[in-house]
Amino acid sequence: MDKGKLNRIKAKMQEQGMPQMVISDPVAIFYLTGKWILPGERFHALYINLNDDDHFVINKLFPQTEDLGVPITYYDDVEDGCEVLAQFVDKNSPIGVDKNWPAKFLLRLQELGGGSEYRNGSIIVDKVRQIKDEGEKQAMRESGAKLDKVMDKLIPWVVKGLTEQELNAKCLELLKEEGFSGPSFDPITAYAKGAADPHHITDDSKGKHGDCVILDIGGMWKNYASDMTRTVFIGEVSERQKEIYNVVLEANKRGIEMAKPGNKMSDVDKACRDYITEKGFGEYFTHRTGHSIGLEDHEVGDVSLVNDEIIEVGQCFSVEPGIYIYDEGIGVRIEDIVLITEDGCERLNVYPKDDIIVVPDGE
Amino acid sequence: MDKGKLNRIKAKMQEQGMPQMVISDPVAIFYLTGKWILPGERFHALYINLNDDDHFVINKLFPQTEDLGVPITYYDDVEDGCEVLAQFVDKNSPIGVDKNWPAKFLLRLQELGGGSEYRNGSIIVDKVRQIKDEGEKQAMRESGAKLDKVMDKLIPWVVKGLTEQELNAKCLELLKEEGFSGPSFDPITAYAKGAADPHHITDDSKGKHGDCVILDIGGMWKNYASDMTRTVFIGEVSERQKEIYNVVLEANKRGIEMAKPGNKMSDVDKACRDYITEKGFGEYFTHRTGHSIGLEDHEVGDVSLVNDEIIEVGQCFSVEPGIYIYDEGIGVRIEDIVLITEDGCERLNVYPKDDIIVVPDGE
Repeated sequence: MDKGKLNRIKAKMQEQGMPQMVISDPVAIFYLTGKWILPGERFHALYINLNDDDHFVINKLFPQTEDLGVPITYYDDVEDGCEVLAQFVDKNSPIGVDKNWPAKFLLRLQELGGGSEYRNGSIIVDKVRQIKDEGEKQAMRESGAKLDKVMDKLIPWVVKGLTEQELNAKCLELLKEEGFSGPSFDPITAYAKGAADPHHITDDSKGKHGDCVILDIGGMWKNYASDMTRTVFIGEVSERQKEIYNVVLEANKRGIEMAKPGNKMSDVDKACRDYITEKGFGEYFTHRTGHSIGLEDHEVGDVSLVNDEIIEVGQCFSVEPGIYIYDEGIGVRIEDIVLITEDGCERLNVYPKDDIIVVPDGE
Repeated sequence: MDKGKLNRIKAKMQEQGMPQMVISDPVAIFYLTGKWILPGERFHALYINLNDDDHFVINKLFPQTEDLGVPITYYDDVEDGCEVLAQFVDKNSPIGVDKNWPAKFLLRLQELGGGSEYRNGSIIVDKVRQIKDEGEKQAMRESGAKLDKVMDKLIPWVVKGLTEQELNAKCLELLKEEGFSGPSFDPITAYAKGAADPHHITDDSKGKHGDCVILDIGGMWKNYASDMTRTVFIGEVSERQKEIYNVVLEANKRGIEMAKPGNKMSDVDKACRDYITEKGFGEYFTHRTGHSIGLEDHEVGDVSLVNDEIIEVGQCFSVEPGIYIYDEGIGVRIEDIVLITEDGCERLNVYPKDDIIVVPDGE
């Protein structure tokens, strides 16, 4: 187990009066152990407590050959893993469990009387995961830099006549070519009305002259996610499109300007939203400004008006305002990932955005 | 909602003294409503009770345009969906919840005092799903018949020099070509030592002269899964391989022979296992004999020594004994899906298995 990360989690457990916790999310377990352990539907639990009497309970079908830095107790298919866990639990103290722990395990632990009180413990791990350590920062930087290269290779593929699905497949191919282990989410490659609908699903519509094209892409590199959006235009860009692009661009920059320690997450959202509203497009900015990112593309910690948490050094999140006018078939979004530093932030992807990109029709 | 399926579920609720239940598994909701509703991490709940005061609670980001046959209550992102659900719940009765309901929702419902007692309610839905109605039987038959065609097209692709991954990709292509919406699980295409390890992950090893090749494939057709395994040989088959193949074949047939109403699921396992043990290979048959199948490839209801449930008309499950001798690089498995009828069973895939298939080396 990574002592630094584990100690930060235990400090927060102490702070919140939660002396013991069950961690079951494979991502959180990877975060702590550096190992991907995927027992699927089978019970497994990383139990930690403030007495450092930590235990890992796992089915013997998943033997661990390396030392995880925590004693492992194996059970087999005719045993009840939850019963094994219950032996280690202090029945007289509150216990935290993972937010997504399947009810069948929680109900069983409750039946066995495995704690004086049950709470959602994920928020502790999620908060600690928000603050990246040096190794994580490096992986995030590399992931962002590689994504710049993919965007650079992808844009020339935007031409009239290519379907969204074909462009999507090309994006996946380029991510692989650049060394990403896979996408960090299903890429969005959307034209015109598709771009103007944030819930659009990639289809077989073809790019046309004058379309705006949203390219929202990301990859997994050394287990860390990147994520970036650029909007480009096919053949020409209308005055209306230009106006909207420039409003989104300025909003994106104002949001990034507010991304610094001591400000609130909501300040970043407000900076984007106020500017877009001031320019008369408020009703067309229909989503939160961004999300935290790390081992997963979407992590806990929204950049939204209702999140008043204070921004801290080491956090990574997206700043991605957009304007979507479905009736006009115009959608523009510009997204960058920032890493919070002592005096502001570092942008992890720096693909150019100041000049509007108009790709040739391509016929 | 499908009245027949709903009534069968409510009859079982009555039987088990569970007057109310929350269904959240998208597969179970599809089973009842015929609609795929996928709200991801957002709260949703199909609440049913014995007073037929049923309600569907869902985020308004997922508007339902068709009548689901149940009143829908929408909530939005600033509301607590669980609180909306709690209004409908009878606080003085036990309540069943889905086995995989995320702990964050169960803990919240418990906090709101949403029932006198909480139980795993999935077993009721899972048991009802085991018994296929006429429409489901038809889809399962079609899915099985189409899979026979895929196997027939896949086997000629087994040649020396092709990697497991390439063969796997070919399988996915053929499933698509045959009209399946996708695979029902990641296909297994494994050579020699890979075939001899039931936990093997498809890699870039190439088929060699004399290899046994396990082809374990399945597709989704009209939302229903098929699943079949055949084992073939490249270039030649040794006496030892022949012996093992024939033991597995006979075990598979003996298992199918026992698949009839009134027998226990464990009888099927025992028939396979006893024969393999009698022939001296008991220690090399390292898994249960099969699993139930329907909307998902693996459903509740194992064909194993510890499952003494009585087999009923309308059940579908796999019979898939195998022998895996890692040190010799020999693995053989033969799998068929059966549908239980009044007097025995119908095999849903009938690709030939009696004669050992030796494919040409292919160079």
